[in-house]
Amino acid sequence: MTERKRKIVNDPVHGFITIDHPLIFSLISHPFYQRLRRIHQMALANMVYPGAMHTRFHHSMGAYHLMSCALSELRGKGADITEGEEVAAKMAILLHDIGHGPYSHALEHTLVEGVSHEEISQLLIQSLNREMNGALDLTLAIFNDRYPKKFLHQLVSSQLDVDRMDYLSRDSFYTGVSEGVISYDRILKMLVVHNGELMVEEKGIYSIEKFIVARRLMYWQVYLHKTVLSAENMLVQILLRAKALASRGIELFASPALRYFLYRHVGREEFVRDEECLRQFCLLDDYDIMGAIKVWGRHEDKVLSLLCTWLANRELFKVTLSNEPFDAGLLAEWKGKVREKWGLTDEEADYLVFTDTASLKAYDVMDEKINILFKDGTVRDISSIDNALVSHTLARPIKKFYICHPKI
Amino acid sequence: MTERKRKIVNDPVHGFITIDHPLIFSLISHPFYQRLRRIHQMALANMVYPGAMHTRFHHSMGAYHLMSCALSELRGKGADITEGEEVAAKMAILLHDIGHGPYSHALEHTLVEGVSHEEISQLLIQSLNREMNGALDLTLAIFNDRYPKKFLHQLVSSQLDVDRMDYLSRDSFYTGVSEGVISYDRILKMLVVHNGELMVEEKGIYSIEKFIVARRLMYWQVYLHKTVLSAENMLVQILLRAKALASRGIELFASPALRYFLYRHVGREEFVRDEECLRQFCLLDDYDIMGAIKVWGRHEDKVLSLLCTWLANRELFKVTLSNEPFDAGLLAEWKGKVREKWGLTDEEADYLVFTDTASLKAYDVMDEKINILFKDGTVRDISSIDNALVSHTLARPIKKFYICHPKI
Amino acid sequence: MTERKRKIVNDPVHGFITIDHPLIFSLISHPFYQRLRRIHQMALANMVYPGAMHTRFHHSMGAYHLMSCALSELRGKGADITEGEEVAAKMAILLHDIGHGPYSHALEHTLVEGVSHEEISQLLIQSLNREMNGALDLTLAIFNDRYPKKFLHQLVSSQLDVDRMDYLSRDSFYTGVSEGVISYDRILKMLVVHNGELMVEEKGIYSIEKFIVARRLMYWQVYLHKTVLSAENMLVQILLRAKALASRGIELFASPALRYFLYRHVGREEFVRDEECLRQFCLLDDYDIMGAIKVWGRHEDKVLSLLCTWLANRELFKVTLSNEPFDAGLLAEWKGKVREKWGLTDEEADYLVFTDTASLKAYDVMDEKINILFKDGTVRDISSIDNALVSHTLARPIKKFYICHPKI
Amino acid sequence: MTERKRKIVNDPVHGFITIDHPLIFSLISHPFYQRLRRIHQMALANMVYPGAMHTRFHHSMGAYHLMSCALSELRGKGADITEGEEVAAKMAILLHDIGHGPYSHALEHTLVEGVSHEEISQLLIQSLNREMNGALDLTLAIFNDRYPKKFLHQLVSSQLDVDRMDYLSRDSFYTGVSEGVISYDRILKMLVVHNGELMVEEKGIYSIEKFIVARRLMYWQVYLHKTVLSAENMLVQILLRAKALASRGIELFASPALRYFLYRHVGREEFVRDEECLRQFCLLDDYDIMGAIKVWGRHEDKVLSLLCTWLANRELFKVTLSNEPFDAGLLAEWKGKVREKWGLTDEEADYLVFTDTASLKAYDVMDEKINILFKDGTVRDISSIDNALVSHTLARPIKKFYICHPKI
Repeated sequence: MTERKRKIVNDPVHGFITIDHPLIFSLISHPFYQRLRRIHQMALANMVYPGAMHTRFHHSMGAYHLMSCALSELRGKGADITEGEEVAAKMAILLHDIGHGPYSHALEHTLVEGVSHEEISQLLIQSLNREMNGALDLTLAIFNDRYPKKFLHQLVSSQLDVDRMDYLSRDSFYTGVSEGVISYDRILKMLVVHNGELMVEEKGIYSIEKFIVARRLMYWQVYLHKTVLSAENMLVQILLRAKALASRGIELFASPALRYFLYRHVGREEFVRDEECLRQFCLLDDYDIMGAIKVWGRHEDKVLSLLCTWLANRELFKVTLSNEPFDAGLLAEWKGKVREKWGLTDEEADYLVFTDTASLKAYDVMDEKINILFKDGTVRDISSIDNALVSHTLARPIKKFYICHPKI
Repeated sequence: MTERKRKIVNDPVHGFITIDHPLIFSLISHPFYQRLRRIHQMALANMVYPGAMHTRFHHSMGAYHLMSCALSELRGKGADITEGEEVAAKMAILLHDIGHGPYSHALEHTLVEGVSHEEISQLLIQSLNREMNGALDLTLAIFNDRYPKKFLHQLVSSQLDVDRMDYLSRDSFYTGVSEGVISYDRILKMLVVHNGELMVEEKGIYSIEKFIVARRLMYWQVYLHKTVLSAENMLVQILLRAKALASRGIELFASPALRYFLYRHVGREEFVRDEECLRQFCLLDDYDIMGAIKVWGRHEDKVLSLLCTWLANRELFKVTLSNEPFDAGLLAEWKGKVREKWGLTDEEADYLVFTDTASLKAYDVMDEKINILFKDGTVRDISSIDNALVSHTLARPIKKFYICHPKI
Repeated sequence: MTERKRKIVNDPVHGFITIDHPLIFSLISHPFYQRLRRIHQMALANMVYPGAMHTRFHHSMGAYHLMSCALSELRGKGADITEGEEVAAKMAILLHDIGHGPYSHALEHTLVEGVSHEEISQLLIQSLNREMNGALDLTLAIFNDRYPKKFLHQLVSSQLDVDRMDYLSRDSFYTGVSEGVISYDRILKMLVVHNGELMVEEKGIYSIEKFIVARRLMYWQVYLHKTVLSAENMLVQILLRAKALASRGIELFASPALRYFLYRHVGREEFVRDEECLRQFCLLDDYDIMGAIKVWGRHEDKVLSLLCTWLANRELFKVTLSNEPFDAGLLAEWKGKVREKWGLTDEEADYLVFTDTASLKAYDVMDEKINILFKDGTVRDISSIDNALVSHTLARPIKKFYICHPKI
Repeated sequence: MTERKRKIVNDPVHGFITIDHPLIFSLISHPFYQRLRRIHQMALANMVYPGAMHTRFHHSMGAYHLMSCALSELRGKGADITEGEEVAAKMAILLHDIGHGPYSHALEHTLVEGVSHEEISQLLIQSLNREMNGALDLTLAIFNDRYPKKFLHQLVSSQLDVDRMDYLSRDSFYTGVSEGVISYDRILKMLVVHNGELMVEEKGIYSIEKFIVARRLMYWQVYLHKTVLSAENMLVQILLRAKALASRGIELFASPALRYFLYRHVGREEFVRDEECLRQFCLLDDYDIMGAIKVWGRHEDKVLSLLCTWLANRELFKVTLSNEPFDAGLLAEWKGKVREKWGLTDEEADYLVFTDTASLKAYDVMDEKINILFKDGTVRDISSIDNALVSHTLARPIKKFYICHPKI
């Protein structure tokens, strides 16, 4: 046997992650991928859950590990998966988040406009594919659901993909919200390929229900936690304010990469047209953003310096949730208080008092379904089985309104 | 009952951490303490163990939790501990790492010279004490071992303090090196106060042995891991090079706080004499350092840009360990290769090729002992009991030599 | 401080359980309680889940531990609980299962007729109370919901009692069905007393939902697992057959205590009237039953020996589940096959082929409710909150029919 | 692909155990193997650690699982292992404890004399092999170290076999002594075959050290726990007394299998000569022993009834440990007290007061070694490496004397 390079990485969530293919090694070593070490998976959630410091690097390694397990399980049940497909699917999952910027959701509506991280992922994978002389062709086909063996794409992206399995496990683990932990190992053992699609065996029904309920719990208890919403909204306001100041030519401390996005308009068109834009984007990470915010706490613009000082010192906005939109009067009242207290203009007060909405669907019946394969060969969606838990309630979208303002 | 503010923080390591005293709240909210959110506990160990992203903030919260447990346990066994002492001891442990800078061990020998983090902790606690009108007087007495109830200091700092218990547990947990996990809950239940000193009950002997063996394992497997040594030595070289360039007046991208320490000499005297120095120190964290390193990767100084690019992309030096010092010839040979490959001077090559030593004592018989209280009332050090595991071997200091150089 | 005897028991589920009151010590040492060491909590579930060997002794110790935690938590929130009430509530939970016989559910319909384990618990606690000179008066009041502080009873017995919290955690833990694990520690921290009743704080809603969903999962995946149903139904048939043979005066190997119940009719009346009956009951445990079954495997009665050999060697009946009652024809067909294969009479074949039903309600809206205390002071049942998970589905009773027969 | 029967068993220690070979299925289904379900792995340790109820069945399934992992790991590193060898090695580990009787160590010196469980295992495997027409030939060769690929035997039985890995993990897990838990998954990944022998890679040294230290801890804290010693010594005295009474023709309640061993002399010769002896042995399990003890609590022989009542109600002997033999005077003094209190003869008092020794070697340098394979290709025993933890201390045998007597 020729010996092949083989590396084992410790992972507190999954135990040990094994890497043993030269293409995987070169992908992981690439600066585009190493950059993910400097982007926190959960943005500012560590303001509430101090353990939530894990990175997108670690998450995608974990999802890669689950992909390895799933493929080996499916193969054990007779699914036909070539070695090339295996490597391609693993690379697809490693790359699924490559286009995320720092504090991704905040960034997408401020520094870059109208460009989703999915689009940037596409551009980056294509760029990597050119660099790797087409080694990612099959990866791209799977990623974009253009490959006949549909289950490979479903493992990368569907209601039951390894991405969700990893991030729910990992986020629960690192936040310490142990109720969100899912038993991915049992779910993996219940996966099966039927008519080319990914399904779950009948006896896995209750595991899937728990998976969906755990997701619902994580949304309400963690991802949409009021204090997390508060911190992330403050970050959006900071970036909007900084961009507004930059557009007026006011000098702001910034790394070169951050400066690139602050002092010009960057939208979808620029990304597609200008290679430099993508190159600069790949230099951006949490260090650029938070490093600047710390310095901006002493900027002469009062709105910017207040917001930055508060965020750095964790003096966060108060957030109130409601099932109904907030009365315009309430908003005006709070703006009045804020204007008066810090001597601000109307336009400035808008950065400190605002409303928005958050929403959640735990299981989307319209979207990709979770199919259950019964022993008698019939296939039904999890929401339409007898005695279903998820049908009536979890599939309904929930929308919450919230208002943010400083604690006065 | 008057209701008291009470907050629960999720901790994946200890479950839930409860905060319920106004003084503790105000300490934790202070910017000096919040800064610890932006300093990784394990510096660059995440280069090897990607999960090791936890912060000094989280570690000191965990140590605070263990302090709460230990005090409650000791009180349950009849130890006399007033509420004032309890709060003071808790604040002492919360503050025990307050003087750490970013990538502390690297920083101490580069940006600040001859000032240990312990000295800075002292200065900061004194500064906080003035701000809090003497509320930390008792905390300082315990911290500096000037308080008659010696066991309180021993809980903060000794061979068996809650600091070690937390960092060993936490570092094991986050790295995924599960063999380093210690059963702090059993050790806590075995603690006892005897003649004013902290001891361990006889039946806790094997737990203590395992604690010491786990520490030994963590040192060799994690803290002194070759690749961790490599990354941290590269960081030292980067900061030395940057400081050398700064001393020649060469312009370097830096946040104002980092600039303060780069462009002037700061030693112990400056810290004591100049309040501004302490204030600037408290603005420094990992974001200043790593944020600069990313930018320096494009600096025109070849040594600086090489080191910074390599570190950011995790192209780390090769480290070779040995029980003997390295031959001068080997060092010269590597320097020659490096000079030639990148066209460097002798002085420049010194930044890329160098040797140093690492050492470890798992249990220090000379230092503060771990005393065992036997059922018959006798007290003996763990290293001198019958059938001791730690006496002969673990107390011997181990010293390893290593050489670092780029992989060519 | 006078030192009080204090003992720590290791528990893999909860860590350490502390016992520190003389009354608790004497209760646990009593032969009635020690007997629970010899009764498996999950009867024959270990036929499917080999780890499920834990005892009723261990379960009630665990529930006692959760009671200690709950009381301390509620007290911390201002609930008025005297030391006497604390000890009484702890004794109530320790004793809640004292009336269980071996393989309880099988026994209740065979060896003893028409006497529930709850009734036997009552008789036993009263007997103990006489022996302990009234030390259990308050315990009995709490146990029987005659005590004004209603929340104490609710901790012992309600939809959210510590009994369920422990058995769900423990059964999940020992079976290895990790999806059934509940985060009792978070639920405990969310408990609160309001108007004398036990409630859950608003932010605990999702934890409660998960608790109820975990219960549902445990029912379908474990408690009503087809193979577990099979083994327990075989045990019922064995005991029915043995009793039938005994009533005909046929000699059967049996311990004296088992002989007592085999060779006479014992119903509610006998238990209440005859102290000896209770005394004999307290000598019965799993060893009497399984010890006899092993010997009966060589009895000359073919039905008895077949059933006993199969059960001892884990050759279990095939169980088929259905939403509809089974057709009489199917039953007759299987009886025919069985009669022929083993040369049995009609009456004998009835022991080997039979149907029954199993049912489950995960949350009973009619029964004791789980009340949520909202921040604004309102109280609502968990099934009637906005966006409730449990209302529509889990409260509906589910009934399944099954048929059992040997695998031919 | 032809589908093969495949079963998954939940194991709280290892997750899921997969069985997928017809020979393994038939072995596990055999009554000889099913009997292990009724033998507790840790005998009476549950008197101290109530969770320690797991069975020899479960342990050998766990060891089988670790064997599967180890073989797959070694194969992944290039070791040549045929499918036949794989199945044979798995059957060898499944059968390694097949000859254990109930409360094995107590039984070996009482009911059966001078026959070790290893010898009975041999006889049973040979008997099974005849029944299975030679399907266990290779298993026997591996088991008895007659197979050229020595590492297969070493996985079954050596200082680093999967037997120890499983029982240390499992015993720690079920007792709740979390400090004894070993990271078998890392050790498994460090195994390697070199010159046909099982070794550990250099970087696994610290894991092995921890494994050995964990074993030492489990011995002192669990296996040789004073109260466990007490219960097991009481059981020996009970069986000795019962056998003495039986030899005098006195009637004792007993199952037929127990009666077989009580009322005749059974030694090695009988086992080899008389097939019936082996057959009867395979009918014995914990239920025979404990079932009888419960009944004997009411026997007219005072020594027997006292011992049995005490053991059943957990009123255990006091045990005192010492490094020196006990003074004959102390023994005589206790015997005197006991004779007087219960009106016993000298010979009878010997059953209630006695001394014995317990001993332990955590690592046996003389026995099978644990070899470390260094990167440079050299091989050294773990006790002779640089800076070894185990050499000086753990290899020394430790012997403790103890005295047992009733608490008066």
